[in-house]
Amino acid sequence: MQLLKDKILKEGKVLPGNIIKIDGFLNHRVDIGLMRAIAQEFSGLFDLDGITAVLTIEASGIPLGAICAEEFGVPLVFAKKAKSDNIEGGLYRSDIFSYTYNKEVTLLVSKQWLSADDKVLIVDDFLANGEALRGIIEIAEQAGAEILGIGVAVEKGFQPGGQRIRDAGYDLKSLAIIDKADENGIYFRD
Amino acid sequence: MQLLKDKILKEGKVLPGNIIKIDGFLNHRVDIGLMRAIAQEFSGLFDLDGITAVLTIEASGIPLGAICAEEFGVPLVFAKKAKSDNIEGGLYRSDIFSYTYNKEVTLLVSKQWLSADDKVLIVDDFLANGEALRGIIEIAEQAGAEILGIGVAVEKGFQPGGQRIRDAGYDLKSLAIIDKADENGIYFRD
Repeated sequence: MQLLKDKILKEGKVLPGNIIKIDGFLNHRVDIGLMRAIAQEFSGLFDLDGITAVLTIEASGIPLGAICAEEFGVPLVFAKKAKSDNIEGGLYRSDIFSYTYNKEVTLLVSKQWLSADDKVLIVDDFLANGEALRGIIEIAEQAGAEILGIGVAVEKGFQPGGQRIRDAGYDLKSLAIIDKADENGIYFRD
Repeated sequence: MQLLKDKILKEGKVLPGNIIKIDGFLNHRVDIGLMRAIAQEFSGLFDLDGITAVLTIEASGIPLGAICAEEFGVPLVFAKKAKSDNIEGGLYRSDIFSYTYNKEVTLLVSKQWLSADDKVLIVDDFLANGEALRGIIEIAEQAGAEILGIGVAVEKGFQPGGQRIRDAGYDLKSLAIIDKADENGIYFRD
């Protein structure tokens, strides 16, 4: 998606350790107009017939997830990363390793809000090692929900998450795949 | 806001300990159409002339914050609850007590994305003890940003957060204020 790639080239920065800093428009300050354009792009890329919910992971997947949910006319369900007193009853859960926070976290979704009747598009802002997506896929499968596809804004193609998910047979589409990022620049997969 | 009150009466449940469970449309599964209606209601309630950003707190403030940001044509900035490797440089920070998770958490906003040039509307899904709002207000003031107002979807009027914020002189507007909730029902302030 050219609009997204242009934004990454214009505003992105590469920090030591191959960290690609795009938090000025994607996941700390968020350009919601861009999220809308991404949601519209997903509309054309996936067969969303019968979709019942958009599924994402707190926190940085939520802005994109919210706009996608509105675009497709369905609710947003987001996995929580810790047990809150406000969730009652049964939970789907998946333990993942968060590279962002360098610790194990547990993803939780109430059984009330996801079931075998659901057809979901999973969305997330960013894919690197793919732990968050692995966790939410596991939760969707625990629920017996049908995964219509997985839409990601930015994928680090030089980390293994995307390949693993594609190898497992999921319809994963990332709108900007970065194959290389260093002090000289950011390079996208064609 | 009648639409919101009707939704609370229809789908809300009161759990032991005065916990009002509305996570089927507000903060786990989210009805984005309702978030849009709330954003439009805020448009009429606040003077948003010159607004530069919508400010909220991860995670459950983000769906409403994203829709408000799009409605007002400005970016969303959300405070993070833990230090991530992906934030560089200076941070505004505020330590708050989270009653939801029963522990201290630190709210963080990068100095890059909030400054004395900003005029913000702070929004959140829920207000009870008001710790999250106290923290984000403190961060906005550290930045020297102008707070145009504070818009909340649901306030528990029998807990002290709302009163404290109003007593401090902020223009806080909550679209549904619950004054009492027990096994007999949910009662709103007029």
